[in-house]
Amino acid sequence: MKHLRQEFWFNTSRRRDYINITREVEQLVQDSNVEQGTCLVNAMHITASVYINDVEAGRIQDYDDWLEQLAPHDPISHYRHNNTGEDNADAYLKRQIMGREVVVATSAF
Amino acid sequence: MKHLRQEFWFNTSRRRDYINITREVEQLVQDSNVEQGTCLVNAMHITASVYINDVEAGRIQDYDDWLEQLAPHDPISHYRHNNTGEDNADAYLKRQIMGREVVVATSAF
Amino acid sequence: MKHLRQEFWFNTSRRRDYINITREVEQLVQDSNVEQGTCLVNAMHITASVYINDVEAGRIQDYDDWLEQLAPHDPISHYRHNNTGEDNADAYLKRQIMGREVVVATSAF
Repeated sequence: MKHLRQEFWFNTSRRRDYINITREVEQLVQDSNVEQGTCLVNAMHITASVYINDVEAGRIQDYDDWLEQLAPHDPISHYRHNNTGEDNADAYLKRQIMGREVVVATSAF
Repeated sequence: MKHLRQEFWFNTSRRRDYINITREVEQLVQDSNVEQGTCLVNAMHITASVYINDVEAGRIQDYDDWLEQLAPHDPISHYRHNNTGEDNADAYLKRQIMGREVVVATSAF
Repeated sequence: MKHLRQEFWFNTSRRRDYINITREVEQLVQDSNVEQGTCLVNAMHITASVYINDVEAGRIQDYDDWLEQLAPHDPISHYRHNNTGEDNADAYLKRQIMGREVVVATSAF
């Protein structure tokens, strides 16, 4: 069975950021030469998500505001995980909303 | 590798609706003649979801009420996306809760 | 195509519980002898979830508190599903947040 696997590493300048990797994934699907298959794109960090939606500044801001409302960063003492000395407990919650992975069907170009 | 792929199109009469496609998916899995495989069912629109649960009027109403509570449609001016002239920003948020796709293992009938 | 499929059954002592099945899944992936493939782990009950994150008591407590906040168990009369005589309507909502399944890429050990 044909397959291709690739890791990407990203550094973000902001604490929480949205990175469009559509082109990278499209290129890999082409490179794989898989005519009919599936493409799994998943985050390898437990505070990161992969999701599919339009790239539009307003929409991304809406997601960001909403995530902060559903799982606020502050007060950090609100979360047990932060007793470990970290302050990212909200990120594990936000990640559940946005999802760890997407699976898409691919077809020959 | 055996595969079968099918698109379905749906029109809903209500702004937000719940459509049971279990029978259609079951039939396709049978038609595929895949004995042991996976079945991906995903929405092709970014305001739509696919999820698995019982078909029960009360439960669907509970989902619907809950989604409206977590990501209210109004006031539409609350969302940046709606500045584009659309009024469906809440739908992108609700979709994240319900999920874009499901993957199930299939086996010979 | 090589495949391996296994069902696990769990009984929990508490109404809502978190069970780490990482070792079981790892062992199955090894037993499968699939060198490059995908592993689907999904719940077969509609009030259960499968998710990936660290096993840390504080983090699990954070998830649990948060789920109860987003989809409270009480008052049970708040949910239409509970009119059927059940009292688990909140579980269907919580399950959507945590997700039904995960798909991971596997590789030879």
